[in-house]
Amino acid sequence: MPSISRKGQKMPESPIRKLVPYAEAAKSRGVHVYHLNIGQPDIKTPQVALDAVKNNNIEVLAYSRTEGSETYRSKIAAYFHKLGIELDPAEILVTTGGSEALSFAMGSIADFGDEIIIPEPFYANYNGFATAMGVTVVPIVSRIEENFALPPIEEFEKLIGPKTKAILICNPGNPTGYLYSEEEIKKLAQLVLRHDIFLIADEVYREFTYDGKSHHSILHYKEIEEQAMVVDSVSKRYSMCGARIGCLISRNAEVIQTALKFAQARLSPPTYAQIASEAALETPQSYFDEVKEEYVARRNLLIRELEQIDGVKVARPQGAFYCIAELPVADADHFAQWLLESFNLENETVMVAPAAGFYASKGLGKNQIRIAYVLEKESLKKAVNILREGLKQYGSR
Amino acid sequence: MPSISRKGQKMPESPIRKLVPYAEAAKSRGVHVYHLNIGQPDIKTPQVALDAVKNNNIEVLAYSRTEGSETYRSKIAAYFHKLGIELDPAEILVTTGGSEALSFAMGSIADFGDEIIIPEPFYANYNGFATAMGVTVVPIVSRIEENFALPPIEEFEKLIGPKTKAILICNPGNPTGYLYSEEEIKKLAQLVLRHDIFLIADEVYREFTYDGKSHHSILHYKEIEEQAMVVDSVSKRYSMCGARIGCLISRNAEVIQTALKFAQARLSPPTYAQIASEAALETPQSYFDEVKEEYVARRNLLIRELEQIDGVKVARPQGAFYCIAELPVADADHFAQWLLESFNLENETVMVAPAAGFYASKGLGKNQIRIAYVLEKESLKKAVNILREGLKQYGSR
Repeated sequence: MPSISRKGQKMPESPIRKLVPYAEAAKSRGVHVYHLNIGQPDIKTPQVALDAVKNNNIEVLAYSRTEGSETYRSKIAAYFHKLGIELDPAEILVTTGGSEALSFAMGSIADFGDEIIIPEPFYANYNGFATAMGVTVVPIVSRIEENFALPPIEEFEKLIGPKTKAILICNPGNPTGYLYSEEEIKKLAQLVLRHDIFLIADEVYREFTYDGKSHHSILHYKEIEEQAMVVDSVSKRYSMCGARIGCLISRNAEVIQTALKFAQARLSPPTYAQIASEAALETPQSYFDEVKEEYVARRNLLIRELEQIDGVKVARPQGAFYCIAELPVADADHFAQWLLESFNLENETVMVAPAAGFYASKGLGKNQIRIAYVLEKESLKKAVNILREGLKQYGSR
Repeated sequence: MPSISRKGQKMPESPIRKLVPYAEAAKSRGVHVYHLNIGQPDIKTPQVALDAVKNNNIEVLAYSRTEGSETYRSKIAAYFHKLGIELDPAEILVTTGGSEALSFAMGSIADFGDEIIIPEPFYANYNGFATAMGVTVVPIVSRIEENFALPPIEEFEKLIGPKTKAILICNPGNPTGYLYSEEEIKKLAQLVLRHDIFLIADEVYREFTYDGKSHHSILHYKEIEEQAMVVDSVSKRYSMCGARIGCLISRNAEVIQTALKFAQARLSPPTYAQIASEAALETPQSYFDEVKEEYVARRNLLIRELEQIDGVKVARPQGAFYCIAELPVADADHFAQWLLESFNLENETVMVAPAAGFYASKGLGKNQIRIAYVLEKESLKKAVNILREGLKQYGSR
């Protein structure tokens, strides 16, 4: 039997999905499972986007432009203009989800064995894209005690070497919910300028900022226009995860020309999804106001309820819709599986994502979980209650 | 300024697209351009597929299953059953186009520096996926004089070494239109068994076989079930290039499990496109009969007209909708550009794909072009006439 690749062996399994068989088994036993494990919002997709697809008049479902249509990219530029960021459509490459933008970004700037520094815990799939592209992730620890703020710049300095090609941040953060301050972004800008490396920012949760705080895009800082690369996506902004449309943005023409070659190989992003995504840009502000209000209410409820559980420590997320919680257990992996396999409260249980999979450093996050607050408040409250009772019973096994 | 990757520098530019700016310039001068350069059929997408999307009742455009839905994969298995091929849905991984299936296939079996042998000329984007994945393409020449038949097995033997992970074929072939015989497929099967390497077959043109010949899928041969990997796509079969749905098929569980990890990183294939693709499986046979009849008529016309041009040599394609033609010019690249830049016949010209980009061996195919017969007969006839007059004028410059 021919052997698969070492790369294939090293590809990480998604920490979000590895418990799926246990969840399916629970469901087949008639147990209802609250899903706090995946960032799939229950929020309705804007009607204007859904309608655009229903009303399409395509007769030949043809390839679209490799880089996305001129009109769609112009409208994306107009969206950024409203945020005070001036972009030329040529600085935008439409991709098949933020996922593909991340792959193209890594492939365009890093070779086999090159390194990208990422504050951990981080979105687990960064590891997958890096492994696929032959790039090494160098983690730098951020701590729950500090709310997962940016690690000290001196710590970055220690890790930067000849193979370092970029620093990658997620802002607001998945899985931390941390929103970087203007001060932190400026420090990172100076750092990448000093070392002449790239700064990749995954800003797909840009709109999800709370408590009156605002988002600071790396695109605001003209001095790093050669270094800055932004990954964007329609998935969360418009609750359109299934569209698979995102984009890679850079003012560095060489970066976009290079990423375009990766894009040409796969021909074009999906056509129907681009119709939906282009129309989604017409979504009224009231939609976002309602969504934000809903997420703030969910977050407040979640944090309040979690803080009342004995031995649970929670970070205070100010963006996105995730939070990391430390539990009074030795192995959150085992606990999460146990919740699905061996526990239920009135025939209901909860699925969470063990946080160890969001760390690259072995041993970190073993007593942490990530909770996605993507359920409405009533369900969220029930889910946290199940977690509380689960912890009690798990502790007294 | 930070530097892009060597990988990025090495990524090939698409031979199909590099003349696009010249075509656009011609159009802006008011010259009509016949596009024989790209495999974008003018055939209508089956109504059943278009209607399924228009009648969808999605409210939350959510992630779909990473590997494609159970029902869609079951229906794909049923499609193969009709072809006499028995597959379990678990042996099918739905991908974002055949493109992604090729990336996953290469990543799952080959590491940085590993080699894949491909008969040339070959679909140019194989080179792009290989470069992105760090894999080296080792070409083996097939010749226009032999209609691009499979090169002798001894030639393959000479190229197989410790780094060889697979042989990749496209059957029927893009850009050659060659349809491998049962005999040839059996020889390849014996070869990969002898060396215990993979055999990847890109069979996206499976339905497009002419002159009463039938297609021999590598999936028919049980003895290579650990070695065989098939790349499939809805793009050409249903004229749905813009959907971006394909699949990777293997009976080797380790291959599918590994490819699934690459798939998990990018979360899911596009949802709307899967709705269209699942519905497309209901396309009536009459659709395919009509399409095949149309392509045969186009091919016959194209070959007949090309053979009447002085100094033009044509292979006789028996599948897909491409043909390679050798022209009485030293540099088909220059000629193709000249057709767009400096020539027109009654304000019309033609765009073809220079064939050198379909060869990995430097210098080969310099006097060849690839023609995609994706236009209706009237246009095709006009386009060949332009080519004829162009060759005359080009020769007497």
